[in-house]
Amino acid sequence: MLYLIGLGLSDETDITVKGLDVVRKASRVYLEAYTSILLVDKSILETYYGRDVILADREMVEFASEDILDNAQTEDVAFLVVGDPFGATTHTDLVLRARSLKIPIQTIPNASIMSAIGATGLQLYNFGQTVSMVFFTKTWKPTSFYDRIKENRDIGLHTLVLLDIKVKEQSYENMARGRKIYEPPRYMTVGQCAQQMLEIEEIKKAEGAGGVYDEESLAIGAARVGGKTEKFVSGTLKQLCEADEELGGPLQSLVLLGRRTHELEIDYAREFAVDREGWDRIWKRDYDAK
Amino acid sequence: MLYLIGLGLSDETDITVKGLDVVRKASRVYLEAYTSILLVDKSILETYYGRDVILADREMVEFASEDILDNAQTEDVAFLVVGDPFGATTHTDLVLRARSLKIPIQTIPNASIMSAIGATGLQLYNFGQTVSMVFFTKTWKPTSFYDRIKENRDIGLHTLVLLDIKVKEQSYENMARGRKIYEPPRYMTVGQCAQQMLEIEEIKKAEGAGGVYDEESLAIGAARVGGKTEKFVSGTLKQLCEADEELGGPLQSLVLLGRRTHELEIDYAREFAVDREGWDRIWKRDYDAK
Repeated sequence: MLYLIGLGLSDETDITVKGLDVVRKASRVYLEAYTSILLVDKSILETYYGRDVILADREMVEFASEDILDNAQTEDVAFLVVGDPFGATTHTDLVLRARSLKIPIQTIPNASIMSAIGATGLQLYNFGQTVSMVFFTKTWKPTSFYDRIKENRDIGLHTLVLLDIKVKEQSYENMARGRKIYEPPRYMTVGQCAQQMLEIEEIKKAEGAGGVYDEESLAIGAARVGGKTEKFVSGTLKQLCEADEELGGPLQSLVLLGRRTHELEIDYAREFAVDREGWDRIWKRDYDAK
Repeated sequence: MLYLIGLGLSDETDITVKGLDVVRKASRVYLEAYTSILLVDKSILETYYGRDVILADREMVEFASEDILDNAQTEDVAFLVVGDPFGATTHTDLVLRARSLKIPIQTIPNASIMSAIGATGLQLYNFGQTVSMVFFTKTWKPTSFYDRIKENRDIGLHTLVLLDIKVKEQSYENMARGRKIYEPPRYMTVGQCAQQMLEIEEIKKAEGAGGVYDEESLAIGAARVGGKTEKFVSGTLKQLCEADEELGGPLQSLVLLGRRTHELEIDYAREFAVDREGWDRIWKRDYDAK
């Protein structure tokens, strides 16, 4: 059996009891370690499980899945995924390959940022499609997120923006020389995300489009959702550009509010506001009953 | 401390290790029992936790929250919610009241149907807003879900439809006579949902609107997601009207596909199709590259 097991969002005790039982009995335990991270190291998981954990990076999952699936027709293999196994990243490929090898599959769900973001006080019913924000470079500033946000905002919905992480990335030089030397991991902050959003809005405006959001659009920054040091900061996009210090370390996400925001949602998120008076004023001006 | 603890979707072992530790130590343990259900009885939870569990119905949470929050400034109170505490139902009111009483609050997230539905193989990025379907009566057929589905379909997105449950409902007669006698619980099936969706499409069409979906629109029925008896059936809305026997017992949900459906999603869901040939044919005709 191939078990896809969600680890939740924060530390080693966020696994479910059901998931932990499987991990302790499985023949091999893999940890998917390139699309998200827990807030604790692999060694802590290994001590807690009493098991060796094999890190499965993108190369292994995409090009050496036969190793992962080896003998899973008869043995139990645990494939651990931060969050929910079918949350932000689906491992559809791995499952399709397992199916073609007649390997039975069981999923053990867990919290995903895509539902845990409800801890901001925003109603999940009021969210549109989720988007991802990648680290811009000087020459690469993909704007597809902007069109998706426009679609959500046109119908008044919130947008969850998931922020890029770079784990086990090679520099161009090291890649060109075939050296398996990796850069230190990087995690996008809410401030970087808000800045990139405003940058694209400026570019779109200069092109005669734009107007999807602006510096005074309301948003919530979320850090380490579900963990003991969980932290929310609400304010305008402009304010969130400066909120990194208050939010602290990774992982972070951002929610851009839609105009359908309910008064109860605003009340709830006022608690975290950089500037409560401004929060209320902008809500009344741009959102309330619009 | 008030702990809001997600129980996950299926049985007593879906609680996280962190959540279980809190339950075992808390002064009082409440179970929110009116917006969703686990697939096991309260007595099984009590045995597993080694604790008494107090059922918190809607009346208690809305009108007697002071009992729940009593002394939570200094004692630990566990409030258990099926799924994620901030998933489909947010307990914003309870948290706002706790805040006003200076009670510290901690959330322990868990799987929610709103992310676990990814087990259908559909990408969560391709979902628009989630809608709810209530049991129609002869005189009450609310159609707000239809407008929301239209918004999602206009931009090509999938829609998760959450199905009504009726727990601890009184008949009109018993309510009028003030008798606290409750009807047996009812859980909407995928078949009932698909029928109600098609009924409203007919009504809208007769009014000169309509055309949001039809009998041949592709959808996936999901039952007991995350449980050992998890079951998916994919097909047209017409086919899903007849799929209740195959899907089995509650809880169930339905996903209506959007035209942005990716080939990998279709491949994944073909596995569950009532009629694989028809599934592929309709996908090619109405969805592929549309």
